Amino acid sequence: MSKVYFEDINYIEQLLAAIEHSQLFVLVDENSKKHCYPLLKDFLKDHQLIEIISGEKYKTLDSCHLIWNALTFASADRKALLINLGGGVIADMGGFCAATYKRGIRFVNIPTTLLAQVDASVGGKTGVDFNGFKNHIGLFAEAEAVLIDPVFHQTLPEKQLKSGFAEMLKHGLIADKQHWDNCIQSGYQQVNARLIKDSVAIKERVVLVDPKEKGERKILNFGHTIGHAIESHLLGTRHEVLHGEAIGIGMLLEAFISQEMELITVAEYEIIFKELIKIYSKPTILSEEYDQIARLCLQDKKNENGIVNMSLLKQLGEACYDVAIDKKTIIKSLNEVLKLHF
Amino acid sequence: MSKVYFEDINYIEQLLAAIEHSQLFVLVDENSKKHCYPLLKDFLKDHQLIEIISGEKYKTLDSCHLIWNALTFASADRKALLINLGGGVIADMGGFCAATYKRGIRFVNIPTTLLAQVDASVGGKTGVDFNGFKNHIGLFAEAEAVLIDPVFHQTLPEKQLKSGFAEMLKHGLIADKQHWDNCIQSGYQQVNARLIKDSVAIKERVVLVDPKEKGERKILNFGHTIGHAIESHLLGTRHEVLHGEAIGIGMLLEAFISQEMELITVAEYEIIFKELIKIYSKPTILSEEYDQIARLCLQDKKNENGIVNMSLLKQLGEACYDVAIDKKTIIKSLNEVLKLHF
Repeated sequence: MSKVYFEDINYIEQLLAAIEHSQLFVLVDENSKKHCYPLLKDFLKDHQLIEIISGEKYKTLDSCHLIWNALTFASADRKALLINLGGGVIADMGGFCAATYKRGIRFVNIPTTLLAQVDASVGGKTGVDFNGFKNHIGLFAEAEAVLIDPVFHQTLPEKQLKSGFAEMLKHGLIADKQHWDNCIQSGYQQVNARLIKDSVAIKERVVLVDPKEKGERKILNFGHTIGHAIESHLLGTRHEVLHGEAIGIGMLLEAFISQEMELITVAEYEIIFKELIKIYSKPTILSEEYDQIARLCLQDKKNENGIVNMSLLKQLGEACYDVAIDKKTIIKSLNEVLKLHF
Repeated sequence: MSKVYFEDINYIEQLLAAIEHSQLFVLVDENSKKHCYPLLKDFLKDHQLIEIISGEKYKTLDSCHLIWNALTFASADRKALLINLGGGVIADMGGFCAATYKRGIRFVNIPTTLLAQVDASVGGKTGVDFNGFKNHIGLFAEAEAVLIDPVFHQTLPEKQLKSGFAEMLKHGLIADKQHWDNCIQSGYQQVNARLIKDSVAIKERVVLVDPKEKGERKILNFGHTIGHAIESHLLGTRHEVLHGEAIGIGMLLEAFISQEMELITVAEYEIIFKELIKIYSKPTILSEEYDQIARLCLQDKKNENGIVNMSLLKQLGEACYDVAIDKKTIIKSLNEVLKLHF
C-alpha cells in the first residue's frame, strides 16, 4: 500500500530525494497548474509539465494518448517518475498512464481536492471512463507515495468541499460512527488535517484487508452504485454534478434501500436523511429518467450475472456487501426519496 | 506465474471447469478463427467470439477499443473469462484488454503459433504498440493458464516456424548450450512438443527469479534491441518481417557486438553466425537507413538515461545484461554484418 504523508508541500523535496529517478514529470490540468503548481514548483528540480484539460469529461483514453505521447516525446524511460498534481481525475488517469507506460513507471500523488485527498489517494484504483461507463478501463496500481497538504483546499469552491465531504461521511457511515459524528459536528466548511487523516485511516484499514476488492473492500462502494449511475447520467448535461455530490445522493438512496431491506431501522435512516439533505441538493432528474438510472446501475462493475450487488448499511457505522437488489427496488428508492421526500 | 499445460486441445474442458466464470469470450483474428477455432469450439460451452484483424499493424489501442467495446456490449462482468486464441499479438493485446477491463478480468492463453508458444505464453508481458513503438503501452499480467498443443502449427507457413524458432535458439544461446545444440540438430521444420517444453522451461526459470524485469530477466532481451528496431523500421513497408525473423537478425548483430566487446570469442561468434544465416534472410535495409535503426534502438524500453543498455552473450549458453552500448557500435554491427558479411 502507498505510504501517505500528511506534511507541508515542501516535504516533496525529501520525498523525491528518496526515489531514484531519471526524469521528472508533473501532470496537471489548467486548474491545478494555476492554483497548485505555483505552491509546488520551487521544491522541484528539473522537470517537465504535462497539461490536460480538467474535468471528468476528459477522463478518457484520448487524454491518456496525450499523456503517453508527452512521455514518449520526452523519451521518458522506465526510471521516469510522474507526479500527479490535482484532483481525482488527475490521480486516476495519471496513475493509469504511468502504470501502463513501458509496462509501468512509478508515480507520486499529490491530491489537491478534498475528495482526492480522502478518496483517490489510497487504494491503488486507477482508470478512465469508457463509453460513458465510469472507471471502466483501468487497473490496480499503487503510488510510490501520497502527499496530503490541506493548503490546497483553501481556494476550493464550496461544491468541491461538499463533494469530498461525502466520502468522509461515507467512511463514518460504513465503518466508524464516531467519525460520522465528528464530521457532522465539524461541517464541510471546517475540515482539518486531523479529520482527513482519520478518514484516510478508515479507508486504509478497509483496503488493507482486501486490496483487490474480493470481499470486505466492497463496503467502500456504499452510495456508489446509484451515485455513479446519477453521475454518469448527468455527465455532459447542464445539470452535471461533482462525483461526491452524486455520492451524497447515492448514499441517501442506498440508505433508503438499507432500510427497505430491514438492515437499518427507520430511525437510523431518518438521522442519515436529515443530515445529508442539509448538504446535498436534489439532482435534476425527471421521473421518466428513473428507469435509465436503474439500467445504468445494472451495468455497474459491482454487478455480476445480471444482479446488482449493492453495498448497504447494517447500522450507523457498519456496512455489508453483495446484497442482491433488483431494478424495482432501485426505482422505488428514486420514487420515494427523490420524488416525494426531498 | 501462469501454469503451462502441454496437453491436447480437448483438455480445455477440464481447465475451464476449474475456473469459475460468469461468461466466456474467445478472442480470435481471421486466421485463428479459420484454422484454430474449429479445433477448439466443440470443447467450449456457451461463449462469444470477439474478432480482430490479424497482424502487428493492428496491435494498437484502436483494436483494444474494439475488444473493450465487445465486452461492454455483452455486459461482461468481473467474473467473465477471456480465451486468447492465436499468436503473440492476440495474447499480448487480449491479455492487456482483460487486465484493464473493469480493473481486470481473468484470461487463458491458447497460443497457436510456434513463436507464441515458446515466447508470449510465459512471463506475463501484455501490451500494444503505440506510435510505432513496440509494446509501448502495457503491463505485467498473468494468464490463469496457458494451454500448448503443437497441433496448431501443423498448418503454419514456413516463415512462422522460423520466427518461433528464433526464440528457441535464443533460449539456448542465453542459458543452455544443450538446448541450442538440440534445436540446431532438429531444425525449425521438426520442432516437437519436447523441444517446446524445454524452451518454455528455460524461459520460466529466467522469469521466475525476476518477474518484473529488474535484472536477470533482461537476458531474454538478447537480440531484441536491434531486432525490435528492425521490426519497427520495416513495419508497414513491403519488406515487413515477422517478429522472430527480426530477432534472428537481431541476435546475429548482437552476437557481433558481444564479440566486439570481447565478451565472446571470434570462434563462438562464427558458430552462431554460420547457423543463423542458414535460417534467416538478410532484411531489406539500405545503409542510409542504419542511422535510423540506431536511433530506434535508443528509444527502446531497455534504454535508460540516453544509453542503450543491451543484453549480450558471455559465451554460448550464457548472457549478461545492462551493457552500455553506444550508437557507433550499433552502426558498426549493421555495417559489418548486414552490409559486408551476408
